Amino acid sequence: MTAQREKKSNPNERELFVKMAFGAWELQNSRLEALIEEFSDEQWRAETAPGKNSGAYLLGHLTAVGDGLLPLFGFRERLYPELEEMFLKNAEKSGLKKPAIADLKKYWRGVNLKITEYFRQMSAEDWFAKHVAVSAEDYAREPHRNKLNVLISRTNHQSYHLGQLAYLKVK
Amino acid sequence: MTAQREKKSNPNERELFVKMAFGAWELQNSRLEALIEEFSDEQWRAETAPGKNSGAYLLGHLTAVGDGLLPLFGFRERLYPELEEMFLKNAEKSGLKKPAIADLKKYWRGVNLKITEYFRQMSAEDWFAKHVAVSAEDYAREPHRNKLNVLISRTNHQSYHLGQLAYLKVK
Repeated sequence: MTAQREKKSNPNERELFVKMAFGAWELQNSRLEALIEEFSDEQWRAETAPGKNSGAYLLGHLTAVGDGLLPLFGFRERLYPELEEMFLKNAEKSGLKKPAIADLKKYWRGVNLKITEYFRQMSAEDWFAKHVAVSAEDYAREPHRNKLNVLISRTNHQSYHLGQLAYLKVK
Repeated sequence: MTAQREKKSNPNERELFVKMAFGAWELQNSRLEALIEEFSDEQWRAETAPGKNSGAYLLGHLTAVGDGLLPLFGFRERLYPELEEMFLKNAEKSGLKKPAIADLKKYWRGVNLKITEYFRQMSAEDWFAKHVAVSAEDYAREPHRNKLNVLISRTNHQSYHLGQLAYLKVK
């Protein structure tokens, strides 16, 4: 009981953790936003390396992953559920019709704006709560399986694909 | 004063956050280790994409960055200071003579083992202390500029290059 009360009594440190993880996420987002500003549609359509995913596919993929945070965190349903089939459940060569580059950019920004809007309403305590895909039993045993941990993991996922998107840069 | 005392009174949450950030770092390391097991020397020597860094250069680069954590965290001098010139201060095309692939693998593992050894001796509180490159004044103003934040940033940096190294996989 004492430990529980201590936890609740210390919002400052909790806020510091959130600031660190959230700051890393925002940094990766600003990097993707810079690429969106920089690349032409032709660059987005190009393969990041021979035989590898195009920039457009990776942009759709990152958007679909970000969109998935909305239901995972219990906020709302996905904004663009159709992206899941195109960019998460299927590879680029699936033959599924994909949105235009301008729409992909719009979707990424839309998802990012919506997530950020919800994130900004979260208290530091909310971040340490479990997400929808973890059972109460598992969470009691493994309290690190919280929303902040998902954010850390998604940030690394975005960094991974940013490393590939960087290959679209014109030397 | 009360806030300070509350901070020290809550090791559990601090440990939880360290576990999360440290877990993300270990996950990225295990991914690089898996590539070391998987790729042939020929694969390491290949460019990750036409005109882009070779696997070997990225491996040396990640090793040199990891090695830099030793002095940055105040543990000790670099294990392999010569890597800094080859893989941090100069691009691949510098013409500097580089180590053999077998040595690069050995260096990466050596650095990683040494860092992990030091990390495991750190208390959760140590992680929230400032690193060498931040002044006491800046740290007082921006307490998120601590060692754990550096680890989060380095983890994302490694993810970025892992996304590129993945392109060396044989389909």
